[in-house]
Amino acid sequence: MAEAVVLLDLWVSPFGQRCRIALAEKGVAYEYQEQDLDNKSPLLLQANPVHKKIPVLIHDGKPVCESLIIVQYIDEVWSDGAPLLPADPYARAQARFWGDFIDKKIYEYGTRLWKLKGEAHQEAKKEFIEILKVLEAELGDKKYFGGDAFGYVDIALVPFCAWFYTFETCGGFSVEAEAPKLVAWGKRCLERESVSKAFYDPVKVYEVLKQAYGFE
Amino acid sequence: MAEAVVLLDLWVSPFGQRCRIALAEKGVAYEYQEQDLDNKSPLLLQANPVHKKIPVLIHDGKPVCESLIIVQYIDEVWSDGAPLLPADPYARAQARFWGDFIDKKIYEYGTRLWKLKGEAHQEAKKEFIEILKVLEAELGDKKYFGGDAFGYVDIALVPFCAWFYTFETCGGFSVEAEAPKLVAWGKRCLERESVSKAFYDPVKVYEVLKQAYGFE
Repeated sequence: MAEAVVLLDLWVSPFGQRCRIALAEKGVAYEYQEQDLDNKSPLLLQANPVHKKIPVLIHDGKPVCESLIIVQYIDEVWSDGAPLLPADPYARAQARFWGDFIDKKIYEYGTRLWKLKGEAHQEAKKEFIEILKVLEAELGDKKYFGGDAFGYVDIALVPFCAWFYTFETCGGFSVEAEAPKLVAWGKRCLERESVSKAFYDPVKVYEVLKQAYGFE
Repeated sequence: MAEAVVLLDLWVSPFGQRCRIALAEKGVAYEYQEQDLDNKSPLLLQANPVHKKIPVLIHDGKPVCESLIIVQYIDEVWSDGAPLLPADPYARAQARFWGDFIDKKIYEYGTRLWKLKGEAHQEAKKEFIEILKVLEAELGDKKYFGGDAFGYVDIALVPFCAWFYTFETCGGFSVEAEAPKLVAWGKRCLERESVSKAFYDPVKVYEVLKQAYGFE
């Protein structure tokens, strides 16, 4: 298929990384367009007028927004590659549940580790560790969240592995001590080219987050 | 199919109503189990250990949580009825985008109309009217959000029509004046038995919300 596929993105965005991983898993060639969020391009504002956010996948001129919706779209359009979502409706619902859980929890509770201070920070740390343990329990002894095949839930979560160092540094805990299976899973995912190509040095990510949020 | 379908729900929940409407649209017989959220049942806690919330659809003993995930599950399992999501991947992505928009905006910004006071209340009112206008523009002159067929986005939004009276009363504005097409769409939806059976008197809903949130 000769199709125009463009991704409006920001290199450090875990949401954009999800799309890059899904496109790589499906072997889709695309044009990557780095965006300046301090000076949003007319193309971004036109492609995502509601949220005005990256990532946006533009496929043959038509924009798709919101990272997990983009991942599902990629899975449905390039359906000849290995599926990202399982075929069984119950397994699909479970995958969507965990994708939604990650979307509702990791960014919101993770950023509290540097946004909050004192007692509220202690509470945030407790809540965030609890979230990691819920994911650790769901992963269990499986290779990937969906079983033997890398897929949707892995794609939803794995970009945040590059944030673990920041979570640990700002939270004062060790992700590996709290959720060792999750850390081992992250390393397994990084063996995939699709993931390693979208991944950045956690210390570099820490520096970017430090500057973006102004924490010490 | 002789299947056990159970819905753990609360009558006034717009999220539960979504599931009831989807089940009715598909003609699925099910057992409705009203839940007491002040005294959560062992069944609810076991079926949704992560969020401990209604609605939960239990199908042949297996629980599905989160209302829009349940609606997609119903659409995929009972696929012989009229589809709730369109078949085309781009149209599906658009439907998911608007379902997600409704999920992120209506409850969060709508409840601010009675949670906030003074200047913050004025800001909330402005934001909420803007959200209604975004939905009004997306609906346009279509019969339903997806076109001629009632579907996923309609199901996501229509239960909140019973909250319009509360939004108006607490916000000091008229939904009909701000978004007349949306109000007309709500009335069209109410002509469907699936919707009218799940719908309650907006004044009764106001009384419930008033008591639940303790507003005047």
